[in-house]
Amino acid sequence: MDTDLSGNSRVVILKCCGYGFRARAFGAPRNDGSEMSSQSPFALPGTSTELEEGLTLTPKFDADGLVTAVATDAASGEVLMVAHMNAAALAKTIATGEAWYYSRSRRALWKKGETSGHTQRVVELRVDCDQDAVWLKVEQIAGACHTGRRSCFYRAVPLGQAGAKPGEMKLEFTGERVFDPKAAYRK
Amino acid sequence: MDTDLSGNSRVVILKCCGYGFRARAFGAPRNDGSEMSSQSPFALPGTSTELEEGLTLTPKFDADGLVTAVATDAASGEVLMVAHMNAAALAKTIATGEAWYYSRSRRALWKKGETSGHTQRVVELRVDCDQDAVWLKVEQIAGACHTGRRSCFYRAVPLGQAGAKPGEMKLEFTGERVFDPKAAYRK
Repeated sequence: MDTDLSGNSRVVILKCCGYGFRARAFGAPRNDGSEMSSQSPFALPGTSTELEEGLTLTPKFDADGLVTAVATDAASGEVLMVAHMNAAALAKTIATGEAWYYSRSRRALWKKGETSGHTQRVVELRVDCDQDAVWLKVEQIAGACHTGRRSCFYRAVPLGQAGAKPGEMKLEFTGERVFDPKAAYRK
Repeated sequence: MDTDLSGNSRVVILKCCGYGFRARAFGAPRNDGSEMSSQSPFALPGTSTELEEGLTLTPKFDADGLVTAVATDAASGEVLMVAHMNAAALAKTIATGEAWYYSRSRRALWKKGETSGHTQRVVELRVDCDQDAVWLKVEQIAGACHTGRRSCFYRAVPLGQAGAKPGEMKLEFTGERVFDPKAAYRK
């Protein structure tokens, strides 16, 4: 339960006020209030059993109004990126079959590829047991990563590194650039 | 940048105090302070360029001291689960090649499968561009989900559901139980 990290009073606020207040209560991304509170297609989460065994999508948004979203390549299975969705992004993704996210840094709803053209067509969408994460199998145009790689996970962490001191934990590159990020984001 | 969600003063605190304070500052999971502050093998994150193009693992832990962890089946590519790691969990995973996580609900370091026996041997570990998420390709014993399924993502969200009212957004089951959770967690 994510809400276990909150104090009791915070949990009560979430239960009473729904998506709009949930997103604004802690200086978090200010969503479009009308969209979140009056137009959200999602009912509030129920019991653990309802969340885990139910046939209704009732996402368990965190204190910032977000769920985690993992996008994998529908053909290769490679994890392309990990991002977040608010209620509006999730609803738009479901409705359109194109991947929408919520940018925490820009505090804005964001269609993947809206600048670069590197969109994601969703082949299948799944939700996890406690409904605080979604998995998108996508057809990715060009690359998912803003650095120009196909996947954001282009570096491996060699296993067996024990006893390393700060700054000694090494990475190894595994992925090459598939597009020029300067050109893609200059549009 | 995750830290964009924080006020400036909060960012300053993180920069000054490192992992131990980072994890405790907001009523978040109280990690073992000694383990986090004096024994962490991870240096603090540098610039965006260092994070994205560097050869050193400097995880960008969030305000709760956590990174997101996605585990996929090394053979099938299926996403098994999404969880979190603190510095200790990540360091133990790298050192041992077995998956360790941090349970937000139990506020405790947690070896996957320690109760059920359903451990995860890590075949490959990767980190994403801004080093706030890791991807584990694992060999999963039995199933990853506490509900008894192989994957936590055992329900699909049918696409094209537009204009749904709260409580109307449907799910469809895709995964069957592969073990009896009552028996597995009674040990």
